[in-house]
Formats: sequence, structure tokens, C-alpha cells
Amino acid sequence: MLTPMLDSGGSMPLYEQLYRHIRGEIQAGRLAVGERLPSKRALAAHLKISVVTVEGAYNQLLAEGYLQSQPKRGFFVQAAEALPVPAQEGPPLPPEEPPRPGFQYNFSTSAVDTGLFPFATWAKLMREVLSQQEATLLNSTHPQGVLQLRQAIASHLYRFRGIQAHPAQIVVGAGSEVLISLLVQLLGRESRYGVENPGYAKTHRILSSCGAEVVPIPLDSHGLRVDALEDSGVGVAHVTPSHHYPLGIIMPAARRQALLRWASQREDRYILEDDYDSEFRFSGRPIPALQSMDGGGRVIYLNTFAKSLAPSLRVSYMVLPPQLLERWRREFWFYASTVPSFEQYALAKFMEGGHFERHISRSRLRYKARREALLAAARDTGLTQVGSFAGGDAGLHLLLWMDRRWKEGELAARAAEVGVGVSPLSVCDLTPPPADRPPALILGYTQVPPQDMTPALERLKAAWKF
Amino acid sequence: MLTPMLDSGGSMPLYEQLYRHIRGEIQAGRLAVGERLPSKRALAAHLKISVVTVEGAYNQLLAEGYLQSQPKRGFFVQAAEALPVPAQEGPPLPPEEPPRPGFQYNFSTSAVDTGLFPFATWAKLMREVLSQQEATLLNSTHPQGVLQLRQAIASHLYRFRGIQAHPAQIVVGAGSEVLISLLVQLLGRESRYGVENPGYAKTHRILSSCGAEVVPIPLDSHGLRVDALEDSGVGVAHVTPSHHYPLGIIMPAARRQALLRWASQREDRYILEDDYDSEFRFSGRPIPALQSMDGGGRVIYLNTFAKSLAPSLRVSYMVLPPQLLERWRREFWFYASTVPSFEQYALAKFMEGGHFERHISRSRLRYKARREALLAAARDTGLTQVGSFAGGDAGLHLLLWMDRRWKEGELAARAAEVGVGVSPLSVCDLTPPPADRPPALILGYTQVPPQDMTPALERLKAAWKF
Repeated sequence: MLTPMLDSGGSMPLYEQLYRHIRGEIQAGRLAVGERLPSKRALAAHLKISVVTVEGAYNQLLAEGYLQSQPKRGFFVQAAEALPVPAQEGPPLPPEEPPRPGFQYNFSTSAVDTGLFPFATWAKLMREVLSQQEATLLNSTHPQGVLQLRQAIASHLYRFRGIQAHPAQIVVGAGSEVLISLLVQLLGRESRYGVENPGYAKTHRILSSCGAEVVPIPLDSHGLRVDALEDSGVGVAHVTPSHHYPLGIIMPAARRQALLRWASQREDRYILEDDYDSEFRFSGRPIPALQSMDGGGRVIYLNTFAKSLAPSLRVSYMVLPPQLLERWRREFWFYASTVPSFEQYALAKFMEGGHFERHISRSRLRYKARREALLAAARDTGLTQVGSFAGGDAGLHLLLWMDRRWKEGELAARAAEVGVGVSPLSVCDLTPPPADRPPALILGYTQVPPQDMTPALERLKAAWKF
Repeated sequence: MLTPMLDSGGSMPLYEQLYRHIRGEIQAGRLAVGERLPSKRALAAHLKISVVTVEGAYNQLLAEGYLQSQPKRGFFVQAAEALPVPAQEGPPLPPEEPPRPGFQYNFSTSAVDTGLFPFATWAKLMREVLSQQEATLLNSTHPQGVLQLRQAIASHLYRFRGIQAHPAQIVVGAGSEVLISLLVQLLGRESRYGVENPGYAKTHRILSSCGAEVVPIPLDSHGLRVDALEDSGVGVAHVTPSHHYPLGIIMPAARRQALLRWASQREDRYILEDDYDSEFRFSGRPIPALQSMDGGGRVIYLNTFAKSLAPSLRVSYMVLPPQLLERWRREFWFYASTVPSFEQYALAKFMEGGHFERHISRSRLRYKARREALLAAARDTGLTQVGSFAGGDAGLHLLLWMDRRWKEGELAARAAEVGVGVSPLSVCDLTPPPADRPPALILGYTQVPPQDMTPALERLKAAWKF
């Protein structure tokens, strides 16, 4: 009979010791397939342990398929086949973090000034939300997002972007990537997607990765060229009309109208209006969103709190035109909302209480000061003698067109060597740029304090020799 | 010259009043295309306002494309074409919420007992996270999720599921839907995806919606039939081996090994092991995960905090085998993490502090009591005379097989009429079930307190007449 060494003083329960012993016997073939095990009572008596202990071990073996129970007959060893693949050394794991250069002066466009985030207010609102301890906080929320948040967004859009969106048209999601991947499912992979070239390369990657065919569409000084859109057989066009990334073009009214006219000509044409940093316009009133000029339901408006609040918050949203909303609800209602409801309620309170508006105003002031400090430092250091800035009316970055004597890749590399992070325009090229395009660099200024602008540009002066 | 009525006492800034006036004149055609506007100085003098005000209005009109500036010549009206589509009445908006029946006794499987959630602890941890006020909290996190959280998950998996996963292999995402949609991008749409039939219908919908071809694979009493997998040309199999949804089958070791052997036979075969409610096993040790038996890197392990903590938290994760991890990093590094970093840090602290383990233990006790109360009530009311429960060793639902005299759709409908929410098994059928399958109902018991079990079943007794 089975005679394991059971250690009743050990940390492992007896039933588990017994289970492991029998499993080992089966795996080693010492208990053969079909062999009958002693009855629970007999084994318990043999081992001087309780029947319950044996039962625990047998049950585990039954559950894992090592044993089979035959009513009134007992327990039999079941075929437990050898592991299919010998444990092998896999390829080594890639390192945890990809090496990221630590720049002393980082003109990246993907971060915000973290000093602006109202931690205390957010903590207070989060505490308020959690103190309600309501069931609605925990169970799945509305697939489009918490109603209270969608109402706050609708009201914000109406007051600041002239957009009349019903909360029922708004879908909240965990970042633009998530929303774009849902949109590809909604609008179909058969459609061809046009994206701005140069443009935000990530949009191209996400759309391709979701299985869509993506066509880079060239720009002129007014933004996306509608004639090129016509020629390309595109069905869905992704645009950043309020502040083109990276060129900074604000699409004028006439081009907007031409774009809307293009979309209105076929039932399956849509415009994805990415309004990613429209909160940051530094002169005059913001330009009305394409969505607000659209009478035909052809515009899907997208925006994010990544720039206006924090990238790590992972809250974006879109406004669907009514006919798409209907299809959405028919086909995608099964998708759960991707944003935690704690965050959604806290953000709703943040917006309702006017905190968001104040945060935007404070951020705008701070970023404006940085932009001005950057431009002043450029004048003082003589950078404006060899380059010129564009796209500064809005948004959180500037484009720096440089004299043709340089190559932009080299400029960026030399900047990196002296601890200054700037991106070459070429990171936004989806196709090779025209040979005669001057070199250009993208400078996001949200993370560099005003007093650092001159030292940063002094370094560039030394590195670039201007 | 332009002569608007400007109201300096109004709430609208003067420059905006002027801007609106001129825009209206252009739109109405009273200012013709090509017409030259007065100089800023002249108009300011005419209207007795400052040049800065006129400049504000002109800049806005320039930015929106209504005006064009010609150096040294002045400002000219630009072609502003009519809106492309007449504003039309869209289809009416669908109602905000789909009608959801409010059951007095809800045996739904998609919710948890919200009374268990440790609000106070969570609020405290969230406050701790927010009080650090660090930049790392706000800017984009590691695309796979915050390292601290991945470490906590790896340690949990090792201690409770026997899974040796390096934190570098873990990817955190905003729900299983998000992870599955990423996996389709990683494993390819060319592959055929096998899913359990009957099974969790949402998996089928998500995979199809992401553009994958999905094949329902039949089960036998040991779970997914590997022979059917072979015959179907499937490349990727989605399984719930630790507790099949909805049948409750715990896949025995031999079947697990057969499944792993199937996967090892071709380079492009993978198993998606969905371990969705493995924390809730009520007898014996949990069965080792497929992932922990896999020596060949063919298993992608998926789990979620939706069942073990709260559905609204939106945190799921997967463990990628090394060779897929490499591809992931090469091709998907651009995707931002979809979970807010506040939540990720709070959850990491929650796990590190042992709160998660305690929460699971408390939940397991509470759910076990509910399961036992349900089974006792079934005996007391005589339900066990006409039906039998299956799948009760683990997980958070039971399957109730009923006598053939009934039809399951009718049983569910009659239950709903008396305020008891139960799902027919047929909601999990991806193809018509065998004609001789008895009727069955799915009963999740997480939301029904023990003292409600008898009243709930009494209602069923009256409705079903047993």
C-alpha cells in the first residue's frame, strides 16, 4: 500500500503531502494506469490519518484527472500522459525597459507639465467618490461611459468648441488608440483610411495594426489636400484641423468646407476629427470644430484628456453622429467601458465643479509663457537667424524650420549629444519627403521651464554651431 | 465702411463682436470675395475702438480662412463657400440606456457582491498614491503597465497559481476585450480562432469583431475536444480550463496535456488560457494552470480583476511567452498602457500589502456560504427533485440541469416574470445544441444574499410548478 512520509509538523497540509506523493507515483509510472487505489478508509487507517485528509488528496487527484472514480468500485489511476514538450530554454527575455535617453532639456511632445496637475483637488474628489461606496461604482458601467461624465463632456464641448453633442452620442474610452480600434470595427476594414502626411505616425500604425488599409494623404499650406483624398479612393479621413501635428497648420474655413463636401458625397465617407490639443489656442477665439460645421453627420469628433490633464489618466472620448450611434449600439453594446468608473466619476466631478476649466486656463498661461520664453531665447541666441518657427498660434509644440545647410537627423543627433531632446520632422513622414524640403525639428515646450530655455538653446548653439 | 453695433458693456469682448459681425457680412455675401477690408488703424478710428481690438477680430478671421492677408496691401475677403450639406434632421437618438429588467433576485454572472469591496483601504491607498505627486504618476507609463503592478501580479501568480512569470512578460490592459483585441493584432487575422461551444459568447463576438475567423469547438465531459480542434484547422484556441464557462468543467490533467501537445505541433499554434475566476475554488488545491504545465511557450495566460475585485476597475492582464513578448515589443511598443496609472499604483499597493489576498479569502468565504445556501434552498424547495446542479467545485456560478419536460427559454422567461433573473444555457450556444440536451440554466450567486435563496427559489417553484 502507499506509504508516503507524511510530516504533520510541516507547513504543508497533510492532504497536500499525500496528494503530491500519489501524483508523483502516477507520474513516475509506479502506479500504473487502471490500478485501483486503496479505499479512503483503508488508506486512512494504514497511514494513521483521518479519512477527511485522504478524501482531500483523492478529490484533488480526481479534479486534476489523475484518478477516476467508479461508483461502488473505488478509485482508479487514469492515463496521465507525459508532458507534451520538454521544458526548454526560451529566448532570453528582452530587457524590462527600452533604453530611453534622459535629456536634461526635453522638448518631447508626449508629456505635460506635471507640476500643474491639481493633485489635492483630484484626491479630494476621488475620496468623495469612494466615500459613496455605492454598488454602481463597482459593477460594469454603461458601455459608452458613465452618464455623469458624458454630460459634463457635452456641456464642455458646447461651451468651448461650439459642438452640440447629446451625451448619448459620446463614447468614453481608455485612450485614442482604444477608440480608433473600435472605430475600425465600426466603419469596417474594407474602407480605405486616409491620414495626414506628414502626420502623427502612431495613427497610421494603429489603423494598420487593426487591419485597415491606410493611405498617406499630402498636405498643402491649408492642411489636408481634398483633391488628393478624392484621387486616392479613401473612405475615412483622419485629420487634425484645429492644429495640425506636426506642422501646426490651422485649417481655414474654406478647406473645412471642402472636406465636409467631400464627405457628404458618399454614404460611407467619414471624417475623424482629432481635436487633440484644441484647448491650447493662444490668440483669438478657438476655431469652430469641423463637427460643428457638419450638417450631414459625417464627422466623428475625437478628443483626449491626455494633453489637457495628464497622459496617464487614459481618458479619451468621441462624438458619434446619430446614424453611426445606432449601429454602434446594435453591434458594440457588448463591449464594456474601458475606463475605471472611479476615474470617470472623479473626472465628472472635476468638470462639473469648474476645476477643469480653471486647470486649462492655468495651463494655457503657463504654456504661453514657455512658448514666449522659447521664442525670446531663440532671438537672443541667434537661432532665429538660421531657422524660423511655425505653428505657434495654438497647441503645445512649435515647428522649427532650419537653414538648408543642415540635415535634420544630424541636428537631432547632435542635440541629443548635449542633452537636448528634439525630434526631427522626419518622424512624421509616412513617405519620403520632397527632396527640397528644408530640415525641421519639432519642439514641444510643455516640460521645459522658462528659465531653462536660454541654457537649452545655448547648448544647441554650441552643438549646431550657428 | 463696416459699422457694427458694438456693445462695450456686454459680456462678449468687443473683438469677438466685431469678428462675428464681419463673419456674418461675408457669409451673407454683403462683403464680396476679393473685397478689401479697411486697414486696422482706419477701422479702429472709425469705430472708436483700439487697434488691438480690430487686430483680434482680423486675426480670428484670418485663422478661420475668411480673410487673407497680402503683405503691404491689406486684408481681403476670401472665398468662404456655403456649407456643403444642408443641416438635416438625423435619425432620432437611441434612448440613453437600454431597458434592463430590474430583478428582485438577480442570478446574473456578470457582477460581484459590491458589499465586499474594501472602499476604505482603496481610498487610503489612492490618497497615498496621489500624495506622492510625482511626475511619473502623470506621464505615460510603460506600455505593458507600471512595473510595480506587474511585479505584484507575478508574485501573486507564483504563489497562487504556480505560474513562473517574469514581470517583463506581463501586459496589463483595460479589460479582457482590450487584451484580446491586441492579441488578434499580435497573432494575426490569418489564424483561425477556436472557441469553446457552448462558451462565453462575448469572446466569439470580440474575436469576430476584430476581424478574426472564429470556429466554435465542441466539448465533452473533460472540456474542449482536442480532436475537433485538430479537424477544424484552428491555430489559436481560447479555453477556460480551470472552470469552464458555463458548464463548470475543470479540465483534467490528461486533457490539458493533450491540448498542450496539440499546440506544440506547429509553430503558429497558441492557447489562450482564460483563468477568469480561478481564485474561487471551494475544495482542495487549485489545479495548476495550463501555463505552468507548458514547456514550449505555447500558452498565453489571461486573467482579470473583474471577478476578484470589481468589474468597474477595468484591469486585466496577460502573460506572454518569451518569443511572443519579443514580437510584441518590436511591433506594439507604440501602444500606450490603457489603464490609468493612479489605478495601477493603487492596485500594486493593494496587492503588496496583502489586501488582495485577504479580499479573496473573505470573498471566497462569502461566496461559498451563498453557494451552500443556494444548494440547501434547492433541496428544501424540492428543486433538486426536478433538476441537478453541476460545476460547483469552483467559480461563481452553478449550472442547473432541468428535467426534460421544460424548455429552458420558457423557464428563464417565467422566472423573469416573478422577478428572478436566470440565464438559459442557450445564451452560450454558438451553434444549435444537440436536440437531446436537457434544458439548463446558469445561476450566478454572487449578488444574492443567503437569506434570499429560499424566497427566490420559492418564486421559481411557483412559476415553474414543480
